[in-house]
Amino acid sequence: MATSTSTGILDDARTAEREELVELLTTAYWMEIETVMNYIANSVNPDGVRAQEIIESLREDIAEELGHAQQFAERIKELYGVVPGSEAFRPSQGYLQPPDRQTDIVHVIRGVIEAESGAIEHYQRIIEFAGDVDPVTEDMLIAILRDEQKHRRLFEGFLREYEAEGRA
Amino acid sequence: MATSTSTGILDDARTAEREELVELLTTAYWMEIETVMNYIANSVNPDGVRAQEIIESLREDIAEELGHAQQFAERIKELYGVVPGSEAFRPSQGYLQPPDRQTDIVHVIRGVIEAESGAIEHYQRIIEFAGDVDPVTEDMLIAILRDEQKHRRLFEGFLREYEAEGRA
Amino acid sequence: MATSTSTGILDDARTAEREELVELLTTAYWMEIETVMNYIANSVNPDGVRAQEIIESLREDIAEELGHAQQFAERIKELYGVVPGSEAFRPSQGYLQPPDRQTDIVHVIRGVIEAESGAIEHYQRIIEFAGDVDPVTEDMLIAILRDEQKHRRLFEGFLREYEAEGRA
Amino acid sequence: MATSTSTGILDDARTAEREELVELLTTAYWMEIETVMNYIANSVNPDGVRAQEIIESLREDIAEELGHAQQFAERIKELYGVVPGSEAFRPSQGYLQPPDRQTDIVHVIRGVIEAESGAIEHYQRIIEFAGDVDPVTEDMLIAILRDEQKHRRLFEGFLREYEAEGRA
Amino acid sequence: MATSTSTGILDDARTAEREELVELLTTAYWMEIETVMNYIANSVNPDGVRAQEIIESLREDIAEELGHAQQFAERIKELYGVVPGSEAFRPSQGYLQPPDRQTDIVHVIRGVIEAESGAIEHYQRIIEFAGDVDPVTEDMLIAILRDEQKHRRLFEGFLREYEAEGRA
Amino acid sequence: MATSTSTGILDDARTAEREELVELLTTAYWMEIETVMNYIANSVNPDGVRAQEIIESLREDIAEELGHAQQFAERIKELYGVVPGSEAFRPSQGYLQPPDRQTDIVHVIRGVIEAESGAIEHYQRIIEFAGDVDPVTEDMLIAILRDEQKHRRLFEGFLREYEAEGRA
Amino acid sequence: MATSTSTGILDDARTAEREELVELLTTAYWMEIETVMNYIANSVNPDGVRAQEIIESLREDIAEELGHAQQFAERIKELYGVVPGSEAFRPSQGYLQPPDRQTDIVHVIRGVIEAESGAIEHYQRIIEFAGDVDPVTEDMLIAILRDEQKHRRLFEGFLREYEAEGRA
Amino acid sequence: MATSTSTGILDDARTAEREELVELLTTAYWMEIETVMNYIANSVNPDGVRAQEIIESLREDIAEELGHAQQFAERIKELYGVVPGSEAFRPSQGYLQPPDRQTDIVHVIRGVIEAESGAIEHYQRIIEFAGDVDPVTEDMLIAILRDEQKHRRLFEGFLREYEAEGRA
Amino acid sequence: MATSTSTGILDDARTAEREELVELLTTAYWMEIETVMNYIANSVNPDGVRAQEIIESLREDIAEELGHAQQFAERIKELYGVVPGSEAFRPSQGYLQPPDRQTDIVHVIRGVIEAESGAIEHYQRIIEFAGDVDPVTEDMLIAILRDEQKHRRLFEGFLREYEAEGRA
Amino acid sequence: MATSTSTGILDDARTAEREELVELLTTAYWMEIETVMNYIANSVNPDGVRAQEIIESLREDIAEELGHAQQFAERIKELYGVVPGSEAFRPSQGYLQPPDRQTDIVHVIRGVIEAESGAIEHYQRIIEFAGDVDPVTEDMLIAILRDEQKHRRLFEGFLREYEAEGRA
Amino acid sequence: MATSTSTGILDDARTAEREELVELLTTAYWMEIETVMNYIANSVNPDGVRAQEIIESLREDIAEELGHAQQFAERIKELYGVVPGSEAFRPSQGYLQPPDRQTDIVHVIRGVIEAESGAIEHYQRIIEFAGDVDPVTEDMLIAILRDEQKHRRLFEGFLREYEAEGRA
Amino acid sequence: MATSTSTGILDDARTAEREELVELLTTAYWMEIETVMNYIANSVNPDGVRAQEIIESLREDIAEELGHAQQFAERIKELYGVVPGSEAFRPSQGYLQPPDRQTDIVHVIRGVIEAESGAIEHYQRIIEFAGDVDPVTEDMLIAILRDEQKHRRLFEGFLREYEAEGRA
Repeated sequence: MATSTSTGILDDARTAEREELVELLTTAYWMEIETVMNYIANSVNPDGVRAQEIIESLREDIAEELGHAQQFAERIKELYGVVPGSEAFRPSQGYLQPPDRQTDIVHVIRGVIEAESGAIEHYQRIIEFAGDVDPVTEDMLIAILRDEQKHRRLFEGFLREYEAEGRA
Repeated sequence: MATSTSTGILDDARTAEREELVELLTTAYWMEIETVMNYIANSVNPDGVRAQEIIESLREDIAEELGHAQQFAERIKELYGVVPGSEAFRPSQGYLQPPDRQTDIVHVIRGVIEAESGAIEHYQRIIEFAGDVDPVTEDMLIAILRDEQKHRRLFEGFLREYEAEGRA
Repeated sequence: MATSTSTGILDDARTAEREELVELLTTAYWMEIETVMNYIANSVNPDGVRAQEIIESLREDIAEELGHAQQFAERIKELYGVVPGSEAFRPSQGYLQPPDRQTDIVHVIRGVIEAESGAIEHYQRIIEFAGDVDPVTEDMLIAILRDEQKHRRLFEGFLREYEAEGRA
Repeated sequence: MATSTSTGILDDARTAEREELVELLTTAYWMEIETVMNYIANSVNPDGVRAQEIIESLREDIAEELGHAQQFAERIKELYGVVPGSEAFRPSQGYLQPPDRQTDIVHVIRGVIEAESGAIEHYQRIIEFAGDVDPVTEDMLIAILRDEQKHRRLFEGFLREYEAEGRA
Repeated sequence: MATSTSTGILDDARTAEREELVELLTTAYWMEIETVMNYIANSVNPDGVRAQEIIESLREDIAEELGHAQQFAERIKELYGVVPGSEAFRPSQGYLQPPDRQTDIVHVIRGVIEAESGAIEHYQRIIEFAGDVDPVTEDMLIAILRDEQKHRRLFEGFLREYEAEGRA
Repeated sequence: MATSTSTGILDDARTAEREELVELLTTAYWMEIETVMNYIANSVNPDGVRAQEIIESLREDIAEELGHAQQFAERIKELYGVVPGSEAFRPSQGYLQPPDRQTDIVHVIRGVIEAESGAIEHYQRIIEFAGDVDPVTEDMLIAILRDEQKHRRLFEGFLREYEAEGRA
Repeated sequence: MATSTSTGILDDARTAEREELVELLTTAYWMEIETVMNYIANSVNPDGVRAQEIIESLREDIAEELGHAQQFAERIKELYGVVPGSEAFRPSQGYLQPPDRQTDIVHVIRGVIEAESGAIEHYQRIIEFAGDVDPVTEDMLIAILRDEQKHRRLFEGFLREYEAEGRA
Repeated sequence: MATSTSTGILDDARTAEREELVELLTTAYWMEIETVMNYIANSVNPDGVRAQEIIESLREDIAEELGHAQQFAERIKELYGVVPGSEAFRPSQGYLQPPDRQTDIVHVIRGVIEAESGAIEHYQRIIEFAGDVDPVTEDMLIAILRDEQKHRRLFEGFLREYEAEGRA
Repeated sequence: MATSTSTGILDDARTAEREELVELLTTAYWMEIETVMNYIANSVNPDGVRAQEIIESLREDIAEELGHAQQFAERIKELYGVVPGSEAFRPSQGYLQPPDRQTDIVHVIRGVIEAESGAIEHYQRIIEFAGDVDPVTEDMLIAILRDEQKHRRLFEGFLREYEAEGRA
Repeated sequence: MATSTSTGILDDARTAEREELVELLTTAYWMEIETVMNYIANSVNPDGVRAQEIIESLREDIAEELGHAQQFAERIKELYGVVPGSEAFRPSQGYLQPPDRQTDIVHVIRGVIEAESGAIEHYQRIIEFAGDVDPVTEDMLIAILRDEQKHRRLFEGFLREYEAEGRA
Repeated sequence: MATSTSTGILDDARTAEREELVELLTTAYWMEIETVMNYIANSVNPDGVRAQEIIESLREDIAEELGHAQQFAERIKELYGVVPGSEAFRPSQGYLQPPDRQTDIVHVIRGVIEAESGAIEHYQRIIEFAGDVDPVTEDMLIAILRDEQKHRRLFEGFLREYEAEGRA
Repeated sequence: MATSTSTGILDDARTAEREELVELLTTAYWMEIETVMNYIANSVNPDGVRAQEIIESLREDIAEELGHAQQFAERIKELYGVVPGSEAFRPSQGYLQPPDRQTDIVHVIRGVIEAESGAIEHYQRIIEFAGDVDPVTEDMLIAILRDEQKHRRLFEGFLREYEAEGRA
C-alpha cells in the first residue's frame, strides 16, 4: 500500500536538521535545569505570609520543570544526540539570583516572569522549526509551552497587585 | 524548673559556629545539585540491556538526591543562611561527564563511585562538626550519609563484576 | 543564538488577533455552561430502564463539560481577557429543554446530537483561526473536539437503534 | 401492625404542598446554578497573591455548589416535579458580575457575602415549610444551610480584614 | 450550670417508651433482612439485557440494606433491647418471591415498589414516634428513609416506561 | 482435533445430576443466609471486654458468609436453577438464638461451632457429589469449606480456654 | 418571592440567644478537650491483655473527640463567639484521673461511663435549646450525641462483664 | 456569529477522504494486533538473565499496544467505518516469529526494531494525510508515534551493545 | 523420609504426555487470542442503547481473555513448550465476524455463546487429560472454565430476552 | 559472647535517672497538650485573607503536636512512669491566649514564636540529659526538636514581613 | 436432609491419617523456613549488574515463601497439630550456602533450582496423600506447587543462558 | 576546603573495627531470624479468646522482625561482610519453644520478654561500640532498639495482669 519508506526526522537523509534540533533542545534543557536551581533557592529563602503563596507555587513548579528537563533529555537521546554533563552548564538567569533582603518578594516575581518569558520565546522558536520536520517534538513543546504561559500569567497577576498597592 | 534558656545552635551566642555550618551545608547543597545534573545525563545517554539496570538505579536516585538538596536548602534557611542562586555554581565532577562511546558503562560506574565517595567524606566532616553543636543537623546528615553509602556499595559491586569479567 | 524575541500570541503586536480569539473562546465558554445546565436537567428528569444508560452517560458528561468550561475560562484569562458573569448568559439550546413526557427519550437524544454538532462546528472554527497564531489554544481545542465527536457518535448510535425499532 | 398507610409527602393527598415545595426547590436550584457560573468567573479573573486564597476558596466551592444543585434537582424529581431547562434561567446576582479592575478583591468578597445571605434566607424558608411535612427535605436543607453559613462567615472575616486596613 | 440530669431516652424513667421503640425497630430490622434475601434472589434470577440495569441496582442495594439492618440492630442494643435470632423471622413480602418466568421483569419492579412503600410507611411512623423522645433515632431514620424514597422513585420510573410500552 | 462435544454438567444429558446439585446448593444457600442473620444478632448482643474479640470475629464473618451465599446463588443460576425467595426460608439453627444473659459468651461459642460443623458436613457431601460431574462447583466448595474449617478451629480454641478456666 | 429577610440565628435581633448558645457550646468544647487529655492518659497507662481492648477503644476515640472539639470551636466562631485559650480551662473529670494500680481497669471503665453521661446530659440540653432557634447546631449536636451514646453503651457492657465476674 | 456550518471530516461532503482514512487506520489496527500477539510470545519464550530486561519491556508494551489498537478501533467507528473481525487478519511480521533457540535474544531485538520501523513509517503517512483534513486523528497519531519512536530507540541501544560485544 | 523422587509432569519420563498437553494448551491459547480480536471489534461496532450493556460486558472481557491467553502462554513455557508467533494463527470463529447492520445485536449474542461453548468443551477436555498427570494445569483450567461458563450463562439470558420479545 | 548484661536505662540500677527523665518528659507532655489547646483556638478565631495562611499552618500543626504528646506519653510509660490526668494541668502560655481583636494576627505570630522557643529550650535540655543514658529518648527528642525549629523559623519569617510593613 | 455426619479429615476416626499429614506438613514448613533464610542471604550477598535480576527475584520470593510457611503452620494447627519451635530446625540445603566469591552467580542459580526441585517433589507427595482424604490441603498444595514450578522454570532459563555463554 | 579524606568506617584503615562490627551484626541477624521462627509458631499455636491479643501482636511483629533481619543483612553487606547461610544457624531461645498445653499463655509471654531482653542487651552493646566509629549503624540500631523496648514493655504489662490475677 505504501511506496515511500520514510521514517521522518529519524531518516539518515535528515541528519542536518536533526542536529540543529538537538542543539535547540540542549539549550532548552539547560534553561530548565537552571530554573530548577533558582526555584529551589527562591522557594526556600523568602520570608513572610504573602511569600508562602509564591513558595508554594515555586515548589510545585520544581518537580514540573525537572520533568520538562527530563523530557528534553529523552528527546535529545531519541534524536541520536548526547545529553551534556555539568561542566557544560553556563548560568544566564542573573535576574533570579537571591535578593539582598529576603522579604523583597517583588524581586522574585520579576525574576520568574523574565525566566518564563525567555523560555516562551525559545520554545516558540523550536515549535516553528519542528513544525516542518518533526511533529512529535512540536507536540511535546506545545504542551510544555502551555505550562510556562500559565505560570507567567499567574506571576504577572502577582506583580499587578503589588503595583496597584504601590510597592513595585 | 529550668534555669538556663539556651536554644542551642540558634542562640545569638553561636553565630560563628552557625555560619561555619551554613558554609559546609552550602557545599553539600551544590554537590547534590551537580549530582542531579549528571545523573540525569547518565540515566539517558547509555545504550544496552545491561545499562538498563544502571539507568534504573540512577533515575530513582535523581528524586532522592534532589530531596537531599532540598533538605540542605531548608536547613540553611533554618540556620539563618541564604541559599545561593545558579551563578554561584561551580562544577567539580569531571569524572561524571558523558563518555565518548555510550556503551562505556564502566566509565559511568567509576564516576558514580567517585561522586559518592566525595559526598561521604564531606558528610562525615559535617557530622563531626555538628555532633558538638547541632544534633538536628547531625541526625539529618546521618540519614543522608546512609543513602550514599548504600549507593556506593551497590556500584562497587557492579564494578567488581566487570573486573571479574576482565572488562574494567 | 536567537535574534527575534517574539512570545507569539502574547505579543503586544498581536492584540487584535488575541481579542478575536478571546471572543471565540467566550462563545465556546457559554456553550459549555449551557450544556452543563441542560445535562443536569436531562440526567435527572427521564424515566425508565433504557433511560438509565443515557442518564449515566450525561451525568459523567457534566463533570467533563464543566471541565471544558473551566479550561476555556483559564485560557481567556491567559490571553488577557475577562470571563463574563451570569448576566451575560443568553440561552440558545431550545432543542434541549425538557420534553413534555419524561419517557420521551428520543427528544433528549436528538437534543444532545444537535448540541454536540453546534459545538463541533464552533470548535473547528477556533482550530482554524488558532492554527496560524496560537498553537497552545489549537492543541487544547483539538483535545476538546475529540470528546465532543465521541459523544455525538455515541448518541447517533442511540438514535439509529430507535429508528430501527420505528420509534424515532 | 400498622393501621394508617400514609407515605408522608409522597401521598396523593399532599399534592398541593408537594407542588409548593417543588417551586421553592426550583428557585434554590437556580440560585446554585447561578452561583456556579459566577464562582467560575471569579475564581479565574482576579489577579494578585492575596487573590489566590479567594480563588482557591471559590474553586473548591464550585464543585460543592454544583453538588447542591444536583441534590436539589434530584429532590425535585423525587417529589414528582420536573427540573427546568436553560431557557428558564433568569440572572439575579448583579453584585457578583466581574469588577472593572481585576485586582478589586473587595468587590468579589462583598458579592459572595450577598449571594450567601440570599441563599441562607431562602433555605431557612424551605426548612420552615418542610419541617411540618417532609423531614427528608428538611434534613437535606439543614446540611446545605450549614455549608453556606460557614462560607459566608469566612468571607465576612476577609471583609473585616480589608476594613481594618482601610481598603474597604 | 445544669440543674436537671436527664439523659433523655436512656433514662430509667423512660423504660416504656424505650421498649415501644425497640419493638418498632425490631420490625424495621426484619423488613431489611427480608429485603436482603429477596434482593439477592432477584439480583441473580432475571434474564436479559434490560434486566442488567435492575440487577445492578439491586446488587448495590444489598450492601445498603444490610447496612440499614446493622444500624437497626445496633440501635436496638443501645436502647437496651436484644436483637432476635433467625427463629423469630416471619416472611411478609409475598410480592417479591421469584416469578414463574425469569424474563418477567415487571413482576420484580412491582415487588420492589411495594417493599419500599411498606418500609417508607413504617419508617414514617418511627420518625413520628421518636420525634418527641429520641432525636438520635429520628435522625437515623430520616437518613434511611431518604434512601428508600430514592429507590422507590427509580423503580416507579422503570414501571412507567414498561407501561408506556404497553407491557405492564 | 476434538471428537466429542460435551460441555460437562451443562449438557442436556445431565439434567438429573444438575437438578440434584441445585437442590444441594439451595440448602447450602439457606445455611449461609441463616448464619448471616444469627451472626448479626450475636455480633451486636454480647456485653463485655472478652466479647469484643468474638464480636469482631463474627462481624468480619458476616460479609464473608454473605459472599458465600451470593456465590451459591450465582452457581444455582449458572446450573439453570432458580434462587428461592424469603417465603421458602426455614430456620434450623436453634443453638444460635440469643441467650438469656448477654454475657453468656460460651453459649455463643458453642452455637458457632455447631453451625460451622453443620456447614462442613454438608459441603463435604457436595464436594463428593460434584467431584464426579462438575469440577467448577467442587473447586468453589473446597474454597468455602476451608473458610468454615478455619473458623470452627478458632472457636474451638475459644471454647477450650473457657473449659480450662472451668466456665464452660 | 420572599418578603421577610431573616437569616435565623445569625440575625442581629437574635444576639441574646446566640450568646447563650455560644456559652453552652463553650462548655461542651471544654468537656471534649478534657476528655482528650484523659483518654490519652488512660490509653497509655493500663497494663494487661484485657486492657488492650479498652486502650484500642480509647485511642480511636481520641481523634473522634478532638474532632468534636474542633466542630464546637468552628460553630462558636460561626455564631460570632470567640474560642477561649488554655488559661480558661477548669478540670471537672476527677473520676478519670489515673488509678493507683495500672491494672485497675474497672476504675477506668467507670470513669469513661461517667464522662460520657455528663456529655450526654449537656448535649441533650443544647439540642433542646437549639431546636427552636438554630437547626444547624441542633443537627450537629444530634450526630455527636449519637457517638457518645454508642461509646457509653459499649463501656456499660464492659462493666457488666466485670460485675458478672465479681470483680467490680 | 457563524456562517459556514462545516463539521470537518465528519461532513457528508468528505466521504471519500473519510473512507481512505478508515482504510489507513484499519491497516494500523492490524499492525498493533499482530504486535500484541508476537510480543506475548516473545515476552514468554526467551531464557536467561539478560532476557528478563527485554521480557519486562515487552510485557509492559503489550498493554500499551493493545491500547493503541483500541484507540484505532474507536476512531474507525467515529469515522463511520467498521472494525474488521478475525478472518480479515493477515500476518506480516515474519521477522518476529519465535527463533529456534530461546536464548537467541538478538533475533528478538532485531524483530522488534523492524516492527517498530514499519509502524513509524505507516503512522507518518497517516499524519501527513490527516494533517489537512482531520486534526483529531492527526493528534492521536502523533501521540502514538512518539511511543513507537521511544521503543525503537531503546531496542537500537540494546542491539548496539550486542554488536559492541561481537554477538550480533 | 521420601523414597521416590518424581517431580510429576516435569519428569523426563513424561515427555510424551507433556507434549500432548502443550498442544492442547496451544489450541486454547489461540482460541483466547481470537476471542480478544473479535471482542474488540464487537465492543466497538454496535449501535444503540441496549448495545451498551453488551459493549460494556465485552470490553471488560477483553482484559480477562487476554489474561487467560497469557496464563496459557506461561504454562506452555513452564512445560518446556514454545509459544507460537502470529504466522501460526488460523481463524475459526466465523460466527463472530461483524454483522452487516451494526444494530444486529442478536448476531453478536449468538456469536459470543458459540465462542464460549467452544472454549468450554475444549477446556473440559484439557481438565480430563490433566486430571491424571498435572494438577497445576487442571487447577488453572477449572478457574478459567468458571469464567467462561459464567459469561455464556449471561449471554444466554440476553438471547432469551430477545426471543421472548420475538426478535431473535 | 557478652559479659555484661545491662539493658541500659531500663536497668533497676538506673531508677533515679529514669525518674528524672520521666519528670522532664511529663513537663514536655503538658507543653504539647497546652499547645494543642491554643492552636485549636488560634486556628479558628482569626479573621482575614492573610490569616488563612496562619490558620492553615496551625491546623496542620494540631495533629503533629498531638502526635508529639502521644509519643511523650508512650515513652513515659516505657520508662515505668505514669501519664498524669487533667487535674495536673497548669497553663503557662499566657502569650497565646486569644487577642482582643480577631484581626490582630501579629499577636498570634508572637505567641507561636514564644511557645516554640519554650519547647526548643526544654527539649534541648532533655537531649543533653538523655544523651548520656538513653539514646532512644534522645533520638525521639531530636526528631521532635526539628519540627519545632522548622515551625518557629516559619513564624519568624511571618513576623519579619509585618515588621517590614511597619505593622508589628 | 443429611444422614451421615462425617466432617472428613477432622473426624475422630481419621486421627492416624491426620497425624501423618501433620508430619508431612511440618517437613514442608521447615523447607520453607530454611528457604527464607537462604534467600535473604543470597538476595544480599551477590555483586554485579546481572546479579540484580536474581536479587530482585529472590527478594520478592522471600515474602512469598514466608507466606507459604505461614499457610503450612495454620493448616498444621487446623489439623490439631503443633507448630514446632526453633530448636527443632535441622538445615538440609547445603547447596544454598553462600559461595566463596560473591560474583559466583551460577552457584546461587544452581542452589535455587535444587531447592525448588526438592520442594516440588515433597509437595507432589503431599498432594497424592491428601488427594484421597483432605481436599482442602490438596488445593492449598497445588497453589503452592505452582509457585515453585514457575520459580524453578525461571532459574532453569537463567542457567541455560550461562551454559550457552560457556560460564556454567 | 577539606584536608582529610576519610570515609569513616569504610576506610581501609578501619578493617579491624569493621570486622568486629560485622560479627556483632551477624549475631543480631541470627537473633532476629530465630525470633521470626518462634513468633510464627507462637502466633499460630495458642488457643483462647485472650490469646488472640497476643497472636495479633506477634503476627504483626513477624514482619517487623524480618525487616530488622534484612536491615542487619544489608548493613553487613555494606560493611564488606558476608551474610551466613542456614547451616550456620544455632538456636538459643529455649524459653520460646511451644509449651505443652496450648492454653498456657503465660509461658509464651515470659518467653517473649526474655527474647526481647536478650535483644535489648545485645543492641545496647552494638550502639556503644558503633557510637565511636560508625554513626550510621548506631542510628539504625537505636531505631530497632526502640521497637524492642516498646514490645517488651507491652508484654511486661500482660504478665503483670496475670500475676495480679494469681495465674502466673
